Amino acid sequence: MIPEIEIRKLAVKTESKVVLLVIDGLGGLPDESGKTELEEASTPNLDALVRRSVCGLTLPVSYGITPGSGPAHLALFGYDPLKYEIGRGVLEALGIGLELTEEDLSARGNFATRDKEGVIIDRRAGRISDQENIRLCLLLQERIKRIEDVEVLIKPVKEHRFVLLFRGKGLVEVNDTDPQQTGKKPRPIEVFKAEQEKSARVINEFLRLANQILEKEEKANTLLLRGISKYPSIPPMQDLFKLNPLAIATYPMYRGLARLVGMKVAEVKGGIKEEFEVLEENFNRYDFFYLHIKKTDSYGEDGDRKAKIKVIEEVDKFIPCLLELKPDVLVVTADHSTPALLKSHSWHPNPFLLCSKFTRSDNTERFTEQECRKGELGIFSAQEAMPLMLANALKLRKFGA
Amino acid sequence: MIPEIEIRKLAVKTESKVVLLVIDGLGGLPDESGKTELEEASTPNLDALVRRSVCGLTLPVSYGITPGSGPAHLALFGYDPLKYEIGRGVLEALGIGLELTEEDLSARGNFATRDKEGVIIDRRAGRISDQENIRLCLLLQERIKRIEDVEVLIKPVKEHRFVLLFRGKGLVEVNDTDPQQTGKKPRPIEVFKAEQEKSARVINEFLRLANQILEKEEKANTLLLRGISKYPSIPPMQDLFKLNPLAIATYPMYRGLARLVGMKVAEVKGGIKEEFEVLEENFNRYDFFYLHIKKTDSYGEDGDRKAKIKVIEEVDKFIPCLLELKPDVLVVTADHSTPALLKSHSWHPNPFLLCSKFTRSDNTERFTEQECRKGELGIFSAQEAMPLMLANALKLRKFGA
Repeated sequence: MIPEIEIRKLAVKTESKVVLLVIDGLGGLPDESGKTELEEASTPNLDALVRRSVCGLTLPVSYGITPGSGPAHLALFGYDPLKYEIGRGVLEALGIGLELTEEDLSARGNFATRDKEGVIIDRRAGRISDQENIRLCLLLQERIKRIEDVEVLIKPVKEHRFVLLFRGKGLVEVNDTDPQQTGKKPRPIEVFKAEQEKSARVINEFLRLANQILEKEEKANTLLLRGISKYPSIPPMQDLFKLNPLAIATYPMYRGLARLVGMKVAEVKGGIKEEFEVLEENFNRYDFFYLHIKKTDSYGEDGDRKAKIKVIEEVDKFIPCLLELKPDVLVVTADHSTPALLKSHSWHPNPFLLCSKFTRSDNTERFTEQECRKGELGIFSAQEAMPLMLANALKLRKFGA
Repeated sequence: MIPEIEIRKLAVKTESKVVLLVIDGLGGLPDESGKTELEEASTPNLDALVRRSVCGLTLPVSYGITPGSGPAHLALFGYDPLKYEIGRGVLEALGIGLELTEEDLSARGNFATRDKEGVIIDRRAGRISDQENIRLCLLLQERIKRIEDVEVLIKPVKEHRFVLLFRGKGLVEVNDTDPQQTGKKPRPIEVFKAEQEKSARVINEFLRLANQILEKEEKANTLLLRGISKYPSIPPMQDLFKLNPLAIATYPMYRGLARLVGMKVAEVKGGIKEEFEVLEENFNRYDFFYLHIKKTDSYGEDGDRKAKIKVIEEVDKFIPCLLELKPDVLVVTADHSTPALLKSHSWHPNPFLLCSKFTRSDNTERFTEQECRKGELGIFSAQEAMPLMLANALKLRKFGA
């Protein structure tokens, strides 16, 4: 892996255009038919493309490691996912579409149940309904808008989960209050370093007020905080790779992740068709395009193999219009695998194809896990995708003389 | 990758002999025929060899990174090219055949044009002719032979470029004077650390004198320095790998690179034929041979696909006499790719074959990029070539018990 400090020196701005098409959770596992989702799907356009591309399989983090969407995407964007950790609070906030600033401290919250002594007896408050969650968040928000000079935002997620955002100067990361098991009291926010004093004071005051407000609730009579984290400071793609990047994604978390690395995020209304339309409309205005397809992952998580296959086939139909734009480099890959068989993200490496004027053919016949494995690129770290895209777009100078 | 400190412990001296044949810039890209230079070349001897070798593709630095000759060769010699950086001045000096010592500070120089205020208006002095360059270097050398106790050498390269060498005690690396753009004055040499004082004093005095001497020149009325660098301190192959190595190369830069890692460098007059003759003559006196073929790279850089193919075919003819020497290990590979299509070094991985008594066959049929890709070694760092050669020559002990 080339270190960041070196790639920053090598990258140059050019007119050439790169498209990174991420089909979320694309890789799968065989069912009784012996075929993976990709192998079963009819993908004539991807198969034609793979025959003039160079292929391989990518590892988002390393062998055997199942990544979340955050680290998996960071790796594809060329960043070390072990170096840039995105806190749970920040990811949850991005996931519901909050636009974070560098002043924000975000936490993932759970409504919970405590007994009279304050001991937690249910860490999820009996998984209250979404409506109940919305009611409680509104109740808290109405009564707590600001503590000292810090603005407080409370936004419902699902069931017992919410996002809590503190916006103000001088806030820093602090400990979880969630004891991680029942039978214990929540931990207060503690001060280990002087700079944590303000954050601890503000959050402990928030907890005191919230507990008062929730006191009479039957189930959700308290709350627990986890992953209290700041917006991470990641060198933007403009600076590191000299790119002018646009993200085209419909789901908030991916839009937020793209913003984290400095991408502009396009407005998209609708589904896959509209995403490709937005790509075409913006093609002259940027030089790097991240286009994200979500539904393959969603159906994988549902265990709905047929629906996942249908989405793959739908994406395949848009490949010809994508190619008509004549990108200098086109990569089709995934952030991680989501086999319908597992109903979850998995550790399996991802099919990867790169098409440019400067690739050797590697005799792959279809865009599947097995065929990609035979490709020239072998099995490699997803972090290498960015140097490969830049090289094929002639955006990297020679290293050394 | 095994760390240097470990390989040093494992390496043992034996009688077995290793030949590393580096065909510079060998790897290519397909043209309209769909074939790379190697695929189009007729190479019956390399193809016969590959059938009893183990194969793979090497990455000189990492995915997508196009290496210069310096880092690409260091990797093949078993050194980390990101750890041992060879300064531009040193490489330029090696490139014109200067034999450097550890006291030398080398710089790459440009003749340039400045206006009356000393602002640079042309960083290349209108690309003056080679003759003009020689005249100016002689003029400067005649008047500046020594500053304090430091010997000064000025040697012309091409057009506006020259090598400047300071030979004396206590010299260290300092900043460039080249402002990298017109409209600015050159930077003086600055002192950031106390140890830089002498170097700054000597070089600034050189610049003052040189500017006086060049004052009346029409175009080349000043000069700019870049890559002011010391001969890097690299542990020699004798020490690290317990080898007694000989380099057979005709071009100064590769002879210099070999000297950097402790190789003896043979006298060679002539071309490829003479290089193989020198190998034969010296075969009993060394245990490691680096034989460098330059012209594949030169023709690749010229975009002359046919001439590159012809050189490959010429090298192929010498394989039988090489095999008659019965080396214990023979590796045929490249430092980097130089596809005629790109007319430059590239990031594409290099075909690699290793023949010894102790390899498994991997069913490769021809010595081409595509066939090597199928080999047992897969795609791997060029730095691993040295441990592989040593192992196959039974020159590496077991690691651990």
